[in-house]
Amino acid sequence: MASSIFTHCHSSPSSTTAFFLRRRHPVHVGPTSLRFFSIPSSPPSSHLLSLAASATEASAKVIDGKSVAKQIREEIAAEVSRMREAVGVIPGLAVILVGDRKDSATYVRNKKKACESVGINSLEVNLPEDSTEEEVLNYISSYNDDPLVHGILVQLPLPSHMNEQNVLNAVTIEKDVDGFHPLNIGRLAMRGREPLFVPCTPKGCIELLRRYGVSIKGKRAVVIGRSNIVGTPAALLLQREDATVSVVHSRTSNPEEIIRQADIIISAVGQPNMVRGSWIKPGAVIIDVGINPVDDPSSSRGYKLVGDVCYEEAIKVASAVTPVPGGVGPMTIAMLLQNTLNSAKRIHSFE
Amino acid sequence: MASSIFTHCHSSPSSTTAFFLRRRHPVHVGPTSLRFFSIPSSPPSSHLLSLAASATEASAKVIDGKSVAKQIREEIAAEVSRMREAVGVIPGLAVILVGDRKDSATYVRNKKKACESVGINSLEVNLPEDSTEEEVLNYISSYNDDPLVHGILVQLPLPSHMNEQNVLNAVTIEKDVDGFHPLNIGRLAMRGREPLFVPCTPKGCIELLRRYGVSIKGKRAVVIGRSNIVGTPAALLLQREDATVSVVHSRTSNPEEIIRQADIIISAVGQPNMVRGSWIKPGAVIIDVGINPVDDPSSSRGYKLVGDVCYEEAIKVASAVTPVPGGVGPMTIAMLLQNTLNSAKRIHSFE
Repeated sequence: MASSIFTHCHSSPSSTTAFFLRRRHPVHVGPTSLRFFSIPSSPPSSHLLSLAASATEASAKVIDGKSVAKQIREEIAAEVSRMREAVGVIPGLAVILVGDRKDSATYVRNKKKACESVGINSLEVNLPEDSTEEEVLNYISSYNDDPLVHGILVQLPLPSHMNEQNVLNAVTIEKDVDGFHPLNIGRLAMRGREPLFVPCTPKGCIELLRRYGVSIKGKRAVVIGRSNIVGTPAALLLQREDATVSVVHSRTSNPEEIIRQADIIISAVGQPNMVRGSWIKPGAVIIDVGINPVDDPSSSRGYKLVGDVCYEEAIKVASAVTPVPGGVGPMTIAMLLQNTLNSAKRIHSFE
Repeated sequence: MASSIFTHCHSSPSSTTAFFLRRRHPVHVGPTSLRFFSIPSSPPSSHLLSLAASATEASAKVIDGKSVAKQIREEIAAEVSRMREAVGVIPGLAVILVGDRKDSATYVRNKKKACESVGINSLEVNLPEDSTEEEVLNYISSYNDDPLVHGILVQLPLPSHMNEQNVLNAVTIEKDVDGFHPLNIGRLAMRGREPLFVPCTPKGCIELLRRYGVSIKGKRAVVIGRSNIVGTPAALLLQREDATVSVVHSRTSNPEEIIRQADIIISAVGQPNMVRGSWIKPGAVIIDVGINPVDDPSSSRGYKLVGDVCYEEAIKVASAVTPVPGGVGPMTIAMLLQNTLNSAKRIHSFE
């Protein structure tokens, strides 16, 4: 849990910069970090492009990821239904959970509920903590061959006695709905190549920009963080959309200066409130992937969740901002469902 | 052949910017564009890090790629000899040439000569222009299985009736000495993963920086161009070395402004003299991958070769610059030989 100095963006920009630069390994914020994810229950906005108004002093639009994700899930449910009726195929997602981490169990339960809500079959295997790597590989192998399974997801982190890279590489690329296979990342990086799957969180970031009508072509974009699951694929996606992309990371000597040039910021470092209002170019669009718990004595839980970007300051400078929670978080699981649907469509040549 | 206005960097920055932005598809400058490559015949400098002094009014050091490449080839020759004596294995490179393009024939001849000069076996197959894709695939398949072959190179461009992607994908990743396989590019992009091969031209750029003692970590680097064979892998390599990387391309609205922030510039767009002195931060290091023929009535050939960067202007502002020719060009083939040697070492577990 981060220090409470971050709860209200109280720290000075210079001290947060120092904090950023001190970290050797930026926190990877991806599906496994999407703590306390819950399926949105509020009704969707009547029209997603009508940006929600926010607090009176704020100028930025709030990018309502919860509402967009809900709409996408409705679209997926309709497609799942159409496919089932037309060709009798129901998309299936298999999730492999090893061990008894509570957070992992919560994510898996949420994924299962999300699948059910759109009509996707979910298969789940829960292996004990002391399983062997071979046992996990056997399950992957059987799901690879199972015609009822169109997506395979290994919940991370795995127990430390397993080689994560070996396990992830065992998932056939045709069912790699996480999009983490190097072959998918390579195709994402290359002009004229198409990945089979795009990693869910960065795909969700771009989808938010798209649904809010933010044009990307020719824009300056800065990605903060270079993780395999968010930062790097986000940068590659933005470049595919013809943005001019800079990637800022823990070794960057002047992050504020570079971030201040951005028309679009995607932040995925897991540093609470690191990006201050003064780092933001007026009118920029901010996609905040960070979901960081910080001490909050006023909350009954004793903590609250904040993003990488100081929201109260950003909302006064930016033209649009994702909140935390309720921004990128809900999009990740929606994109997982979409990848699973698309996989079933591809395998069965259904259009 | 480009207009002669580029011969001496006469055009104004604004007009060259317009020229850059008008191009929809930046020219890909890679191995197949290394026109008129010849094996250096001059003796190597006694110490590569002693930078060659340049013209009196210039302040920049000239990065002598010809001399560095010669030294690397001597190192490779010594390793090839050590391996042959220790385990009786001679690295082998197979080159497949389809059709009778004169330029392609010249590159293949140069690669063959370069192999011979370091003791690498070179195998060559020259197929007629009207060969079928299947015939090419059959050759690739037999080289994939041939234990005497450690690297396979398909000379591009292929005749238009062939699918380049199919053909390149057929080369087994263990022998993909060009490093163009998406699996290699994906691993290059990902933290904690290692590509089997790094594409030769960008690898040569980084090697030049390394041998000239240019530190990359924490530096601002700008890559101009985003081709699969130079720009994109160069950006990924720089990021692996902890630079803060921005990629400028044909859709970038303010290339000069971004390029001016760079401590290290790698340009690979194939636009003669596009980068002007005024675009360069004083003290920057410039690696110019472009090899562009421009009209030159004073030359007996009627043209001369210039880079993407206006050399006469750059040399007054930068701290170090690669010349064209004699900069990156000679490095590409040296890296191809190195990849072939490394492949043989890996296949035979020789260290």
